[in-house]
Amino acid sequence: MKSQTEEKLFQQIEEIRGADADAMRDAAAYVQSLAAPPGSLGKLTDAAVQLAGITGKVKNTLGRRRIIVMCADNGVVEEGVSATPQIVTLSQALNMTRHLTGMSSLAAHFGIDVEIVDIGIATSYREQDCGILQRRIRRGTGNLAKEPAMTREEAVRAILVGIERTRQAAADGIDVIGVGEMGIGNTTTSSAVLAALTGLSVEDVTGRGGGLTDAAFEKKKSVISRALELHGLAGTASGSASEDAGAQIDPIEVLSRVGGLDLAGMCGVYLGAAICRIPAVIDGFISIVAALCAQRLCGSCRDFMFPSHVSEEIGYLRAAQELHLDPWLHLNMRLGEGSGCPLAFQILEASCALMNEMATFEQAQIDDDYLTELRAMQKQ
Amino acid sequence: MKSQTEEKLFQQIEEIRGADADAMRDAAAYVQSLAAPPGSLGKLTDAAVQLAGITGKVKNTLGRRRIIVMCADNGVVEEGVSATPQIVTLSQALNMTRHLTGMSSLAAHFGIDVEIVDIGIATSYREQDCGILQRRIRRGTGNLAKEPAMTREEAVRAILVGIERTRQAAADGIDVIGVGEMGIGNTTTSSAVLAALTGLSVEDVTGRGGGLTDAAFEKKKSVISRALELHGLAGTASGSASEDAGAQIDPIEVLSRVGGLDLAGMCGVYLGAAICRIPAVIDGFISIVAALCAQRLCGSCRDFMFPSHVSEEIGYLRAAQELHLDPWLHLNMRLGEGSGCPLAFQILEASCALMNEMATFEQAQIDDDYLTELRAMQKQ
Repeated sequence: MKSQTEEKLFQQIEEIRGADADAMRDAAAYVQSLAAPPGSLGKLTDAAVQLAGITGKVKNTLGRRRIIVMCADNGVVEEGVSATPQIVTLSQALNMTRHLTGMSSLAAHFGIDVEIVDIGIATSYREQDCGILQRRIRRGTGNLAKEPAMTREEAVRAILVGIERTRQAAADGIDVIGVGEMGIGNTTTSSAVLAALTGLSVEDVTGRGGGLTDAAFEKKKSVISRALELHGLAGTASGSASEDAGAQIDPIEVLSRVGGLDLAGMCGVYLGAAICRIPAVIDGFISIVAALCAQRLCGSCRDFMFPSHVSEEIGYLRAAQELHLDPWLHLNMRLGEGSGCPLAFQILEASCALMNEMATFEQAQIDDDYLTELRAMQKQ
Repeated sequence: MKSQTEEKLFQQIEEIRGADADAMRDAAAYVQSLAAPPGSLGKLTDAAVQLAGITGKVKNTLGRRRIIVMCADNGVVEEGVSATPQIVTLSQALNMTRHLTGMSSLAAHFGIDVEIVDIGIATSYREQDCGILQRRIRRGTGNLAKEPAMTREEAVRAILVGIERTRQAAADGIDVIGVGEMGIGNTTTSSAVLAALTGLSVEDVTGRGGGLTDAAFEKKKSVISRALELHGLAGTASGSASEDAGAQIDPIEVLSRVGGLDLAGMCGVYLGAAICRIPAVIDGFISIVAALCAQRLCGSCRDFMFPSHVSEEIGYLRAAQELHLDPWLHLNMRLGEGSGCPLAFQILEASCALMNEMATFEQAQIDDDYLTELRAMQKQ
């Protein structure tokens, strides 16, 4: 039996409707009419068609943009899976509010809102007026190598936080959302969740995160393998990855056992984007694993997702494959935070600009009339 | 013996100095000091280091940006190598001045100057006040399947036009240049030039351009093969592509025999960028073949080049390999015009923003002091 909180979550998920097929058909027809060889604008016009499916309009603009950053700590860091101390989750969250980090300096430069959400930072701090939004479910998760990261109820509540923040963004008039994170140890949780959801091997989904030595990297993989065994999530690992296999696994159960509060909150942001019909831009590895969780909870969510860049983390492309996403930017980045979103917003903006400002064949034709006239003149 | 015009060209090429190694070393050290895992910003910080080598400054801004579009016709179209009539070169050039095409609508949207240069349009038009800059060398080239596309002197003069336009851009205070083109038939000339410069097979460097039927595509390849034979440029085609083989071939001779006025003009823009120490952004297939011509004339030119997107044209990646360029955007575009440049400018802008606005580890440390103080407070 579902808890009241979980009932509340599924009621909201049931609100989700997929892409508007009529608007997409109209947008595709309009793309065909643009004065350029068919298909020559590639993913720029593909994105325009997808956007039409989200908003129901052939022509769109992306005025206000926001990156929502879910910040949380992970108990598994006590196993030594990260090169960076836990306190950095908080210090970088604080630096983000001052636009000093990679993502937030890009966001400030390109005029993008940043919302920093404490959904489970472990370190205490002066919360008042620090610029971090308080939505803490608990102070960091349990060590997934020894116990569930969190209770099922906590995972559901974290997902609901994500939905709530996206509803707020919609209410604020935001046209596109980027999904970022800060959480030392979260490549470990993301690899564990990806392996559990897909049945892919730990080897195939685990990378070096912020930069691990060979020994620490081996340790990280063995911690993930042990955790998957402990929580009974290694069952599908022998089979090949397939959507059918994945569909049988409960993403909330996976998130609560080997996930993180950041992952759960981000999963909620993707669900919220689908509920509010706002495009959601995926960042790197952690962001795409959260997207996969959302898609497993509700397949139609996928219609609202756009990729940004290919993360250097090995698992990224596996998750992208599962979601049939072909990312736009190849920049060899592996920073996280949501750092791929500002540039992806520029690409979406370009996509909108083509639909709004480029001439159709008919409009471009004006000049052919002019030229016919010219040639007639030259013959005289 | 070189003509006076050619002497003038080589005098200018001799002005070129490669990247400023000191500035690059300083920039690389500054990148290391940024508060992020080493290397995690990938090509964004690589570009920042390259930019420092160009300007001599660790921190840069890209205020004014311009796309220079070389427009010219190609006599080879009489062989039926293009799906589009020749008159479209002019009509699209005119549409560009009104910001109606793919590239120019993006340029207008992102506040980028566009300079449309008639370096050899075949069709006559009212030249006054039409917004197209008049630098015509001749009204389209000869049919390279039967005769040289142009004389050596004409090729040199076209290259000089490119240098002149870049010097003007520098005088206008432009900080970065995009290199675009418009010319029906110019994927044919570009494939021929690429094959001649590298010794790659016609099969390896020839694509369907604006969209050819199977029969027209076969014809295009056979026209290129015949032309390379006719002009004695098929000699290296049996060997493997290597920089040594390529270095022996005179790029001006190749441009004059199987090239185009647009290619020669763009080659001049790259040379001009190196002379004026301005970054030059490559667009798609035609743009990168022109870049390769410039690099073969002066190896140091490469230091001033940035990639944008991977063109769908098959030869693009071959040319990128020759230039050791790893493009940023994977958008399945094949429009040309310079349409990849506006988004590449945004990426370069992001690269600059990180250098100008992101915190160093030392600056980020402030928060660790704050946290130490906090923990002391909590123990009391």
